[in-house]
Amino acid sequence: MEKENNTSTISVAMNGGDGINSYANNSSFQKVAVDGAKGMIREAIKEKLDIQQMFSSFPSKTICIADLGCSVGPNTFTAVQNIIDEIEHKYYSQGLSLQIPEFQVFFNDHVGNDFNKLLTSLPSERQYFAAAVPGSFHNRLFPKASLHFVHSSYSLQWLSKIPKEVEDVNSPAWNKGRISYGDSPEEVVEAFSNQYVKDVETFLWARAQEVVSGGLVALILPTYPMETLSEKSFPLPVDLLGTCLMEMAKKGLVSESKVDSFNVPGYAPSVKEFEKAIKSNGCFGVERLELLKTKVGLDAQTTSMHHRAVLEGLISKNFGAEITDELFALFADKLAEYSHFYNPENRIYADLFVLLKKK
Amino acid sequence: MEKENNTSTISVAMNGGDGINSYANNSSFQKVAVDGAKGMIREAIKEKLDIQQMFSSFPSKTICIADLGCSVGPNTFTAVQNIIDEIEHKYYSQGLSLQIPEFQVFFNDHVGNDFNKLLTSLPSERQYFAAAVPGSFHNRLFPKASLHFVHSSYSLQWLSKIPKEVEDVNSPAWNKGRISYGDSPEEVVEAFSNQYVKDVETFLWARAQEVVSGGLVALILPTYPMETLSEKSFPLPVDLLGTCLMEMAKKGLVSESKVDSFNVPGYAPSVKEFEKAIKSNGCFGVERLELLKTKVGLDAQTTSMHHRAVLEGLISKNFGAEITDELFALFADKLAEYSHFYNPENRIYADLFVLLKKK
Repeated sequence: MEKENNTSTISVAMNGGDGINSYANNSSFQKVAVDGAKGMIREAIKEKLDIQQMFSSFPSKTICIADLGCSVGPNTFTAVQNIIDEIEHKYYSQGLSLQIPEFQVFFNDHVGNDFNKLLTSLPSERQYFAAAVPGSFHNRLFPKASLHFVHSSYSLQWLSKIPKEVEDVNSPAWNKGRISYGDSPEEVVEAFSNQYVKDVETFLWARAQEVVSGGLVALILPTYPMETLSEKSFPLPVDLLGTCLMEMAKKGLVSESKVDSFNVPGYAPSVKEFEKAIKSNGCFGVERLELLKTKVGLDAQTTSMHHRAVLEGLISKNFGAEITDELFALFADKLAEYSHFYNPENRIYADLFVLLKKK
Repeated sequence: MEKENNTSTISVAMNGGDGINSYANNSSFQKVAVDGAKGMIREAIKEKLDIQQMFSSFPSKTICIADLGCSVGPNTFTAVQNIIDEIEHKYYSQGLSLQIPEFQVFFNDHVGNDFNKLLTSLPSERQYFAAAVPGSFHNRLFPKASLHFVHSSYSLQWLSKIPKEVEDVNSPAWNKGRISYGDSPEEVVEAFSNQYVKDVETFLWARAQEVVSGGLVALILPTYPMETLSEKSFPLPVDLLGTCLMEMAKKGLVSESKVDSFNVPGYAPSVKEFEKAIKSNGCFGVERLELLKTKVGLDAQTTSMHHRAVLEGLISKNFGAEITDELFALFADKLAEYSHFYNPENRIYADLFVLLKKK
């Protein structure tokens, strides 16, 4: 069922454990999005969750919730508890307190995720049955019509693979000397964009089968308000990380050709791009699509740590673990020098909240 | 839901990873039981699994299977595949090939199990959706009426806790100088037996809620054919391990009082004891209860390695990790000296296969 062993699929696993560089201790940035979407998720459940409809075709006494791309916590536990609290509140407010169902929560991430850390961190007083589901959400992960609420925050910016042409020296989309599309020629941006659209399609194709009719899908993702591919932003922090790698290459500390062939498999679409991908799927109604009013005030050091928690696994795999201390120290220095890269006042990204309802 | 954080519950987690002392590489002993029960499980599905009945109250297109106390593989994957193959075969043989359901498999073990190892070892070509469920099977782990087939092999010999009186210096059941009930006074055996009965009761209480009407529970466990508690066996291998600890205590390498207060939370019941516990629950019909004709020909070194993979976590926690190399080397030497402890010809234990059907 899960084809993640296919070598063409990239697994982006956040740093595990609970050390200084762990994702668990460096995900305050992603927490802002989870907190920012809290109210919208509550409204979604209050106004759009039709319990009668959900249980009409597959009667059950359990509500099944999945958090896709959950990483290791603690953000996933906050998000899940918010959903459960609001569903319970809905039952109470409808005078159905005696019919409150049991909850089963599926925490999903790549096989390489630190599930040991996730499972030992589960809240001890949780009122739900927990299960960990390994695998890429670009594939099927759950049985047909088995989920009632799907949540995914800061995960749908990850691609299932790097588009071939950006690693092809003979292609006009070859992304030489850079590790992201952010500050790259239009051909590179287009290649990333095309891959992104394909990935959203496979994501929605899988969810269309897994979610019951009437079930909800809440997505929070970074978006990029460009209208056309040729509209350049100023470069992203990850582009500055690419610059650091190139500096290290010039000093002979990493191979320049490795930098040329390395690309971070992430892409933040424009709202229009994302909307188009949803509509082409056709299995979901778009109930809400709105930018979050979130602002994150991270400093240079924290921004570097945040990137390290997310990207260290990929970087180590490609360049060797021995370079990461120096790389992220250099990155922190550069960020301090060029504060427009992370200053929230200049932030051109915005987090998008999307609520879908399965037809 | 899961109360494993309760300090009174003992978590026996097998050695993780894939090193020389890992459970994954030292579970050939348990494999014999899985292989020995294969035919009986196939017969169970062929003769006793009533698909119509199972789906009558909770219609679904998915068959949910749980392996309780799965550890890290590979035995659990073999057991699960056998179950799925036979269910599919049943659909084919009834001309229902177009109605073959999807399968969702829940792999359960204690929170401290190496789930990272388990999930990275999942067969890549599996035809089922996989999920890991952390927690003690003496508690509820799954929603009501959500499982169709429960399997548990070589797990139900573990107790949820050590009976208080065997650690109480003022009790006649104080188990001084020993780490198991095997070669102990009747009071000790009785205390272990009482705890075992309570644990089987909580196990069955939880499963009675989780398994659909008509669903099957297949259990494989080591049993001990004594009729009364006063009938002594010759000591078990784990008692010889206790002797080794006492020898190390005499040399000042471990604290004797620690040996006095340490007990392995395992108990192999007699067939009659087990049968009685099932009947007192009353929610299951006993479809089959039969000793397996399994024989394991392990040598002294392999027997020591097998015990190490199972008990090293507990031993390290109580005596410190630094003693384990010496302890298990000494244990291997002792086993070589006293071959009756592991010689299959002398084996007084027998593996019991139990098939229950939820009423």
